[in-house]
Amino acid sequence: AESPRTEWPMDKKLKPLANTPPSTAEILRENNNSSNMHNFEGPEKVFEVWFVPEKRSEATKMGLRAVKRSKWEYMLSLVKCQIISVVGNESLDAYLLSESSMFVYPRQLVLKTCGTTTLLNAVPEVLKIAKSVGLAVEDVFYNRQNFFFPDKQLHPHRSFSDEVKALDTYFKYGAAYIVGKLNGNHWNFYNAEKKHSVPEVNIEEDVTFEMLMTGLDAKSMRPFYYDPKLSSKQASKASGIDGFFPGAEIDDHVFEPYGYSMNGLVKDGYFTIHVTPQNSCSFASFETNIILQDYTELAIRVLQCFKPSQFILTLMGNRTSMQKLNRVSGTRYSKPGLDVRKLLNQDFHIEDDILLKFEHYDLIFLQLMKNHPENHPKRNNIFGADETSPQRGNIDPNSEASTQLLGSKSTVPGDNRDDRKEGSKKKGQ
Amino acid sequence: AESPRTEWPMDKKLKPLANTPPSTAEILRENNNSSNMHNFEGPEKVFEVWFVPEKRSEATKMGLRAVKRSKWEYMLSLVKCQIISVVGNESLDAYLLSESSMFVYPRQLVLKTCGTTTLLNAVPEVLKIAKSVGLAVEDVFYNRQNFFFPDKQLHPHRSFSDEVKALDTYFKYGAAYIVGKLNGNHWNFYNAEKKHSVPEVNIEEDVTFEMLMTGLDAKSMRPFYYDPKLSSKQASKASGIDGFFPGAEIDDHVFEPYGYSMNGLVKDGYFTIHVTPQNSCSFASFETNIILQDYTELAIRVLQCFKPSQFILTLMGNRTSMQKLNRVSGTRYSKPGLDVRKLLNQDFHIEDDILLKFEHYDLIFLQLMKNHPENHPKRNNIFGADETSPQRGNIDPNSEASTQLLGSKSTVPGDNRDDRKEGSKKKGQ
Repeated sequence: AESPRTEWPMDKKLKPLANTPPSTAEILRENNNSSNMHNFEGPEKVFEVWFVPEKRSEATKMGLRAVKRSKWEYMLSLVKCQIISVVGNESLDAYLLSESSMFVYPRQLVLKTCGTTTLLNAVPEVLKIAKSVGLAVEDVFYNRQNFFFPDKQLHPHRSFSDEVKALDTYFKYGAAYIVGKLNGNHWNFYNAEKKHSVPEVNIEEDVTFEMLMTGLDAKSMRPFYYDPKLSSKQASKASGIDGFFPGAEIDDHVFEPYGYSMNGLVKDGYFTIHVTPQNSCSFASFETNIILQDYTELAIRVLQCFKPSQFILTLMGNRTSMQKLNRVSGTRYSKPGLDVRKLLNQDFHIEDDILLKFEHYDLIFLQLMKNHPENHPKRNNIFGADETSPQRGNIDPNSEASTQLLGSKSTVPGDNRDDRKEGSKKKGQ
Repeated sequence: AESPRTEWPMDKKLKPLANTPPSTAEILRENNNSSNMHNFEGPEKVFEVWFVPEKRSEATKMGLRAVKRSKWEYMLSLVKCQIISVVGNESLDAYLLSESSMFVYPRQLVLKTCGTTTLLNAVPEVLKIAKSVGLAVEDVFYNRQNFFFPDKQLHPHRSFSDEVKALDTYFKYGAAYIVGKLNGNHWNFYNAEKKHSVPEVNIEEDVTFEMLMTGLDAKSMRPFYYDPKLSSKQASKASGIDGFFPGAEIDDHVFEPYGYSMNGLVKDGYFTIHVTPQNSCSFASFETNIILQDYTELAIRVLQCFKPSQFILTLMGNRTSMQKLNRVSGTRYSKPGLDVRKLLNQDFHIEDDILLKFEHYDLIFLQLMKNHPENHPKRNNIFGADETSPQRGNIDPNSEASTQLLGSKSTVPGDNRDDRKEGSKKKGQ
């Protein structure tokens, strides 16, 4: 009953790699010669909706989980992606997609799609599906990192403004934020609908923890290249991913010629990882809603697996969760559920440290960067154009690409931060 | 030696008001009939630079204060504004400008200009002036609220992207943030230059406290309309502004036919207020660098003077200051130097609550809105176009105006928040 395994989407012009796994040396050589043909948009669009029973109707206990697969398949066809496989337990169903993942709870849907998928085109169909099982929207979230290749996106994903405009046609009380540097990697975030007058008492814990990593260590990417002699389970083992949550039910997939996706189930929680290993646009995302008292050790394991030169970390939790999270008190780096000093000890420094407090949720946003990127494998400028080239002045100032380019020097992983020490001055000198 | 007092800039087509002060009834009638002809861009561009002596040169103790007035006048001509008057004490000079204010310390410059001034065009001249007295840039800040009428701005102020692009041609390590809702009132913020390796020990306290207010109470605007029989000092007294810091040296000015500006000096600190009273685009800004242990009572006085339907509050302080600020502990609303509950008791609710931590500074950003705008004098939609009109779909999605319009329903002061109560649902229902 499974759909055929879909190939990792790529440019048709890409010469297929030999059907044998590349050596580390080959990966490095290939990466050094990488061109636009290898480009893939790893950063995912993430759409999350919480539902409540509609007025005067009684939703079944199964809610969205009662929806037929064919209905999801039609909805996903609007997004331009397919189901690869499904696993489930008594709490949720986890769909592995040709472009990322979908998680279905009775009253919650998380749809996460990468590449040039048109996620927001499926919103009306999602609402129709929910209505068919007696559910109405309570709370909506949409978020994504800035794209590497915004010009390759299809409407309405060409800019965050367009996305917000689309979302606002479906939902009330939308609030849109750009979190982090406009002229560096940042995170677009949208929330809508929940009424201010809803009393929040005895609400269950709800946390989403996410890490979006760029400039991945090429040598660590070997398990994410297809090898017909190895199973995807062996890729999860070789990379260390199968050890993140021992005992988890894991559904993993290595794409041809490269690329990796996995969903993991731990009781009523999930974790999901998607890797774009090619050096020209390397990206890995880690996301989980599994409740921990502290996310520091998990974050360190994820970092040790992918060795990014830079990453965004978000921790979003409702009031109940935030109060229960561990807190190392008395330091500037103390955050609920995170000991930031331990992350900095992995040779990172803080680029962005932002806290947004909403009525029902707090959002912690951190962006960390390697202290010594020169000790880290170099990678090409992902933006395609050299920022110092004459092209710079010709870029549409309103486009997403230009905000990435504007002053992006200090955020390019190849940048040597040490040159900042030259001519440093002390205030009051 | 003073320049002639410049009229409040306005559209040439505006019929001059009679040279007698309007009654409150006349103000309200005029405001109800207000058209685009009365529109003025109140929100200021704010450019702040901290300097250090250049290498191998010794700056005089007077620093920027030794610069001749004619040099400042030339620099300000590039911004398209003039000096109205100057007051000074042993610490600083405070210039009242035809469009807002300038503050000159030996090693710090704050330039704040409203309307369609071209502030960033003066950056090279500011750097040249600083160099002439042996000073080099240490730390740069640029910020402004979103414009009401972005299309009226001149290059490079037509969009924040353009401004960042301009700033990045002059300064290194620029970081740009949009703080607050993209589809509502927000605050654009840029910081550049200071090296990460600068040790910060025994640094003096440095705080900037700012309130940007919209939807002002029309009845409270009477003192800010020109009356030939009354001095500007009487306007400061009638409005209560002269009581904000008793004993301050105040330089105030009421513009014809309306508009008010003031600079106040308190020892080595300043406070400055600029008011655009006309209902179609009412706006007042309050800014001070005077060190207080707590800014709550000051904020309440400012609110009682202008009675805004909505305001942005920013409190930015260096590490030293943040540690010394008063803190009401144990509540969600506790912030350094601010008891937010007391602000909410003025019949406001929180729209945005954001904290950005930088290497040397923390930035607290709050946006508060009236709970019951229907009890508040109505004002016209400042955006010129009805957001529900067919025009909405025709707006350039990349323009600043469109981000104001996108989903701006809940941020328009005339919006009745109570309609949110309809059909409210409890999670888990």
